Amino acid sequence: MKYRDAGVNIDVAQKSVKMIRRLARETFSPSVLTDIGSFGALFEMSMKYAEPVLVSSADGVGTKLEISSMTERYDTTGYDLVNHCVNDILTVGAIPLFFLDYIATAKLDDRMIEEIIKGLAKGCKENKCSLVGGEMAEMPDFYKEKHYDIAGFIVGIVEKKKIPDISKIKPGDILIGLKSNGLHTNGFSLVRKIIFGKLKLTVEEYVPEIKNYVGDELLRTHRSYFPLLSSLGGTGIIKAYAHITGGGFIDNLPRILPHNCSCKIDSSQWEIPPIFDFLREHGEVPTTEMFRTFNMGIGMVIVIEPKNRGKIEKHFKGKDEEFLEIGNVTEGNREVEIAF
Amino acid sequence: MKYRDAGVNIDVAQKSVKMIRRLARETFSPSVLTDIGSFGALFEMSMKYAEPVLVSSADGVGTKLEISSMTERYDTTGYDLVNHCVNDILTVGAIPLFFLDYIATAKLDDRMIEEIIKGLAKGCKENKCSLVGGEMAEMPDFYKEKHYDIAGFIVGIVEKKKIPDISKIKPGDILIGLKSNGLHTNGFSLVRKIIFGKLKLTVEEYVPEIKNYVGDELLRTHRSYFPLLSSLGGTGIIKAYAHITGGGFIDNLPRILPHNCSCKIDSSQWEIPPIFDFLREHGEVPTTEMFRTFNMGIGMVIVIEPKNRGKIEKHFKGKDEEFLEIGNVTEGNREVEIAF
Repeated sequence: MKYRDAGVNIDVAQKSVKMIRRLARETFSPSVLTDIGSFGALFEMSMKYAEPVLVSSADGVGTKLEISSMTERYDTTGYDLVNHCVNDILTVGAIPLFFLDYIATAKLDDRMIEEIIKGLAKGCKENKCSLVGGEMAEMPDFYKEKHYDIAGFIVGIVEKKKIPDISKIKPGDILIGLKSNGLHTNGFSLVRKIIFGKLKLTVEEYVPEIKNYVGDELLRTHRSYFPLLSSLGGTGIIKAYAHITGGGFIDNLPRILPHNCSCKIDSSQWEIPPIFDFLREHGEVPTTEMFRTFNMGIGMVIVIEPKNRGKIEKHFKGKDEEFLEIGNVTEGNREVEIAF
Repeated sequence: MKYRDAGVNIDVAQKSVKMIRRLARETFSPSVLTDIGSFGALFEMSMKYAEPVLVSSADGVGTKLEISSMTERYDTTGYDLVNHCVNDILTVGAIPLFFLDYIATAKLDDRMIEEIIKGLAKGCKENKCSLVGGEMAEMPDFYKEKHYDIAGFIVGIVEKKKIPDISKIKPGDILIGLKSNGLHTNGFSLVRKIIFGKLKLTVEEYVPEIKNYVGDELLRTHRSYFPLLSSLGGTGIIKAYAHITGGGFIDNLPRILPHNCSCKIDSSQWEIPPIFDFLREHGEVPTTEMFRTFNMGIGMVIVIEPKNRGKIEKHFKGKDEEFLEIGNVTEGNREVEIAF
């Protein structure tokens, strides 16, 4: 018996590694000292920091993967993943340095792997992050056909004294919401239950209420806020960043509130995209539950002082970004009050 | 409909996060600036390096996971994973700094998660590596009951001028083999095919030929070579390290050979553990294929100059490690010749 008789083909894996190497190399900054395929990836540190702090995060895309398999579109989840990770480390003001991925599937398929890596490489390029390595696992019997799992790992850097100090947040500070690009990567188990379980829609169907095809709407990619906000890092203008992921406003906003503060959100300040109303109505999901599960059209919230409102508004105008003042910090005990 | 109706329970996830935080905190070095559960994990860099190079690696444990599910023992795979990652970055002389994990399962189970994290924490402690973060994904419909996937990401550091330079390897250099602790984490798809598919053994069965129970033998953990070798890092004595993982001797040794060198391995120099003979015989696996799939009892190979033989032998004696001179570097074109 040979290894390939057990459903594992090292040759195909090595062929894929060549392709990955080519795509990954396009993302390399001059700090990358090795090619993909070494035992470890080497990244030379910049010495321009006085007190460098490495900021890391690990993420997956959850059951959004199921939509990728249903549509056989594999080029979006890697992009989602990079952007998700970039936003996570942006919350402490970090600049992305490098990214590694883990891809597991039942059977290595050149096209699938290439599409996934293309998505990763696109995300890395847009965020000036080097795709330095990864692991591809072929696990027969573990995954269904056309299915895969993907995880990402990012490392960024920030000057220690420039890390936002949330203890400085105080009542009266304002919350600015940054628009999301649809569902991003959270709540997909509920989405699938409503859309495919209850409504029995298919990914090919056009839904007039959301003016989009089901597959296209659900695969809309996670937006990175790094290109919009990176130039504000270290200026002290942004007092805190909350990435609105699993747990929505209700679980994520308390993470940036000091112990003597709460916040109020006025959901009439932005237009909730039709996909969320569609899910709420057809899924009979209570509105509070919606805000605890989905981003509701806002993928990142930043906290600023009222005196900096004008600066941010101007910065956003220059970047063609809508300025949405969605709430403010109040006295309290880390509660999130949402008016809807 | 609520999110938990879709099979996802954020409350259970949050309870697990508390337990993880407690276990992870025990692994923290003073460089860790945040607790688990922040959007990003903060790790302050030491400034003692002149030209610091970050070394990273991503890994999984492959279908060894199936043995973990079959035996319902979840405390070994995390340990395997950390040690695998530590060895990968050790190949360039790096010291581990921090580790992040990704765990995906059909349904979050407190006990399963706790056991997995215990294994990760144990590995991190032994390798002086901080478990700074991770992602837990509950993916109903994606994984079978009692099944899960796990990936790990490590970041270490090395002084640039102390990175081994394989171009200095030359004919006459000797190869020292470091014993493995069984199968480690490679070749499990073939192992399962032979042991469960062909021989129809169960994990509870005792096999006299290997003097062990099937489950216990297959779950023997991946060994870290960092405790043995760390004090030699930077001394220049070790010219190269090859971690013998997927692809065995045949794929991994060429990774450390310069273009004008080959190597010869004499497999009579060490005792091949009985599990490998058992697999070869019962699986009718050609010996070359064995060396291309399994570690054959050697989990790491280091290259040294003959003049340093005595130093290494003494170092090993002090650490109770067997000194195995398993081969040498020859002139050639990155070929691996194995006498068996």
